[in-house]
Amino acid sequence: MEKHYMSERNLTMLTDFYELTMANGYFVNGKTDEIAYFDMFFRKTPDNGGFAIFSGLYQLIEYLQNLKFTQGDIEYLRQKGFNEDFLKYLENFEFSCDVRSVDEGTPVFPGEPIITVKGPIIQAQLIETMLLLCINHSSLVSTKANRIVRAAEGRNVVEGGARRAHSFDAAVYAARAAYIAGCKSSSNTIADCLFGVPAAGTMAHSWIQSFPSEYDAFKAYAKEYPNECIMLVDTYNTLKSGVPNAIRVFNEVLVPNGYRPKGIRIDSGDITYLSKKARKMLDEAGFSDCQIVASNSLDEFIIRDMLIQGARVDTFLVGERLVTAKSDPVFGGVYKLCALEKDGVIIPKMKISENVSKITNPCPKNLWRLLDRDTGKAIADVITLLDETIDDNIPYEVFDPEHPWKRKTVENFIARPLLRPIFESGKCVYKTPSIDETRKYCSKQVDTLWEEVVRFENPHKYYVDLSQELWDVRQKMLSENLNKFKD
Amino acid sequence: MEKHYMSERNLTMLTDFYELTMANGYFVNGKTDEIAYFDMFFRKTPDNGGFAIFSGLYQLIEYLQNLKFTQGDIEYLRQKGFNEDFLKYLENFEFSCDVRSVDEGTPVFPGEPIITVKGPIIQAQLIETMLLLCINHSSLVSTKANRIVRAAEGRNVVEGGARRAHSFDAAVYAARAAYIAGCKSSSNTIADCLFGVPAAGTMAHSWIQSFPSEYDAFKAYAKEYPNECIMLVDTYNTLKSGVPNAIRVFNEVLVPNGYRPKGIRIDSGDITYLSKKARKMLDEAGFSDCQIVASNSLDEFIIRDMLIQGARVDTFLVGERLVTAKSDPVFGGVYKLCALEKDGVIIPKMKISENVSKITNPCPKNLWRLLDRDTGKAIADVITLLDETIDDNIPYEVFDPEHPWKRKTVENFIARPLLRPIFESGKCVYKTPSIDETRKYCSKQVDTLWEEVVRFENPHKYYVDLSQELWDVRQKMLSENLNKFKD
Repeated sequence: MEKHYMSERNLTMLTDFYELTMANGYFVNGKTDEIAYFDMFFRKTPDNGGFAIFSGLYQLIEYLQNLKFTQGDIEYLRQKGFNEDFLKYLENFEFSCDVRSVDEGTPVFPGEPIITVKGPIIQAQLIETMLLLCINHSSLVSTKANRIVRAAEGRNVVEGGARRAHSFDAAVYAARAAYIAGCKSSSNTIADCLFGVPAAGTMAHSWIQSFPSEYDAFKAYAKEYPNECIMLVDTYNTLKSGVPNAIRVFNEVLVPNGYRPKGIRIDSGDITYLSKKARKMLDEAGFSDCQIVASNSLDEFIIRDMLIQGARVDTFLVGERLVTAKSDPVFGGVYKLCALEKDGVIIPKMKISENVSKITNPCPKNLWRLLDRDTGKAIADVITLLDETIDDNIPYEVFDPEHPWKRKTVENFIARPLLRPIFESGKCVYKTPSIDETRKYCSKQVDTLWEEVVRFENPHKYYVDLSQELWDVRQKMLSENLNKFKD
Repeated sequence: MEKHYMSERNLTMLTDFYELTMANGYFVNGKTDEIAYFDMFFRKTPDNGGFAIFSGLYQLIEYLQNLKFTQGDIEYLRQKGFNEDFLKYLENFEFSCDVRSVDEGTPVFPGEPIITVKGPIIQAQLIETMLLLCINHSSLVSTKANRIVRAAEGRNVVEGGARRAHSFDAAVYAARAAYIAGCKSSSNTIADCLFGVPAAGTMAHSWIQSFPSEYDAFKAYAKEYPNECIMLVDTYNTLKSGVPNAIRVFNEVLVPNGYRPKGIRIDSGDITYLSKKARKMLDEAGFSDCQIVASNSLDEFIIRDMLIQGARVDTFLVGERLVTAKSDPVFGGVYKLCALEKDGVIIPKMKISENVSKITNPCPKNLWRLLDRDTGKAIADVITLLDETIDDNIPYEVFDPEHPWKRKTVENFIARPLLRPIFESGKCVYKTPSIDETRKYCSKQVDTLWEEVVRFENPHKYYVDLSQELWDVRQKMLSENLNKFKD
């Protein structure tokens, strides 16, 4: 049933203009075949959380597979004054980079190379905007959704934010990102058509209002959907009208025909209070199997408070605060040059910034996760040079790159490389797992994190260490630069 | 040059599933031809601002013009168990509603009907999700962009947030929304191709790093783009390396060939401090015409502070905080049933909520802006019944609907109706103005607001009043309902 929602569109020109200016500049400066290495990483976890959930690779693959310049694009660039030989190069453009990435659904941490690109500098540069856009948006929503799902402590979370999403694709891909991260379903029908994210939904207040009475509206609904009956009970008065009318219709329409109600939904008022009262009314009426759905500007913080206060909610319908990641709506992934390759020799590159947090790590890299052999728990991640291997048969010394005297020897561990080939010389070599596989994988991976890392407030900082070799290169480059600009 | 970026896509299934459940329910309950009236309005201005800028009508029109159910859509709905006769109805679906809207670029206020829809309830209901999605996203970005543009006090603001946008369309339509609201250009190339939003951009740090030295990188750039030279000066050290190298290259490459530099860009460090120092260095080198561009997580608050502290910035490149409206990323537009029509008789409808702020205004409506004949300033907006007219030749009494004893007689004013027909019986009757016309219109309309309404902190609440007739209907319905559920 999957349709190619995106591939019909030409998104090649969805790129920051400077990618084109630089591409043309590289071309006229004879750098067309110069090989560059770029890393994508992020600097800060949204909401000061302990980790992020990586996703968006699906969109990125689709984009890279469809990357080409149409005659219209070329004509536009011609009018902008680009070099004719460069335009000829673009006409015959064929993506030929190597791309490696962590799997969707993986918990990731600040500073880690989560995608790496190696290829002709023109190409590796050109894809920057879209690579970041794909991963930043999707990982933002997956990270937020996973927080909300964890706050619900096993109860269902349904994503329902399409109407507040930042335009069309945001609604489409947020539904996917939220499902990967543990949501049970989405209100968004197209997410079902495209990705198999189960779509669900019953009625709005307008349905109730379009009938002479709430009772009539519920009755009409129950007759048409006896198997899918979730009544919205707050149009007039939740406890005095909505719940009693729902119970009456359950008894009159469903029970005599052998059906059971699925639920009621409360969308306003003090939901914690109302849910407790409604639960009692439903139980006393013999509908203890009838679930209670809550909606109305929920997020992980409100859900946590509701549960602490004993709210009797089975399903949380979460909209705007999930789909926009309202409390922190930016996933700040960046894409930085880390090396050039000239005549087979790798020249490490790093950005030295006056903001220390903006200093980058040089060299092509690998990323490893060290997991305890007994508990399966994640101990630390290590960023190494590309040709380094971590042998998990011998003890390995990790150290904090900011405080290199803090050292610890890890034993009895498994070293799992996290980066996987996605494109090789421009050919996709990766088979995207099914969305349900990814969802399961995500849940399992979050379980490898210690409680201290997953809590909302002041989570423990998970160790992301540099190998000694990488750290040495970095320090050398840093001090060379500092000496250069000494007063 | 405008391409139909969106119309190639089938977005009909981008709808909350409950719109379909209800549509099918209306159908089987014989309500196919029942006429319903819906209003779109919002309850709260983002960032507690004094007003919002309405936009997104462009996308909405495109969506409504392309609304149709494909065989694939029908097949999906068949699998979901929808009624066969309803599916036949959808196969022959033709949009036939009346849609009225305020113009893009108009300042709007909480509670006002900014879009109204009249038509068969199935249709008017079905379009809810996308109508909200189009307007909510675009108005969010326009509102935020206008704040940032105002903070810049006449300096240029360039939108540059594509990489942090919430997926593809968010980047595309944010560029448009930001331009309407006063941004000068965008980094996003496709916004130029599609809408004529000027795209601009020069170099990233990777450009500098790909050359043996910063000087070499600047020189190569200046040779290729002597007319468009904006040097990124913070790769190594802004004041000790970047600015001196830029000046050297300006002198060596540009000046001898009759060119002038366009600018330098500072992307990190204390930009206020650095911009003052850089300004001095440029001036002393004879480049007082060379502009300074600032970037790095800016927004209206930071820009205001920078200017208060004397930053010498000519252009602000604003990315993530504009494109995601970071400080308040939800535009909470809603779409509510306000009346049904049966046998030519209008039956007003309203939602009575336990959250007082969620109570809606009944009846089909009009929206008027009263403008002072002498100053041109906006005095108040008035929501009236659809068939009411405000005669601006006679004094008009306005009153606060929350405090109806607070009354004021307005004289010497022009009453401007704000809602304009967009679709009549499903046919588009509106000619979308050019984006530059809309941009100018927006700027002029913001100028009609008093200073007290446009300020950032504690803006004066602009008057949005109900006509006496509308207020009377509302009070009557409200008290009837309250009596019904009295203890």
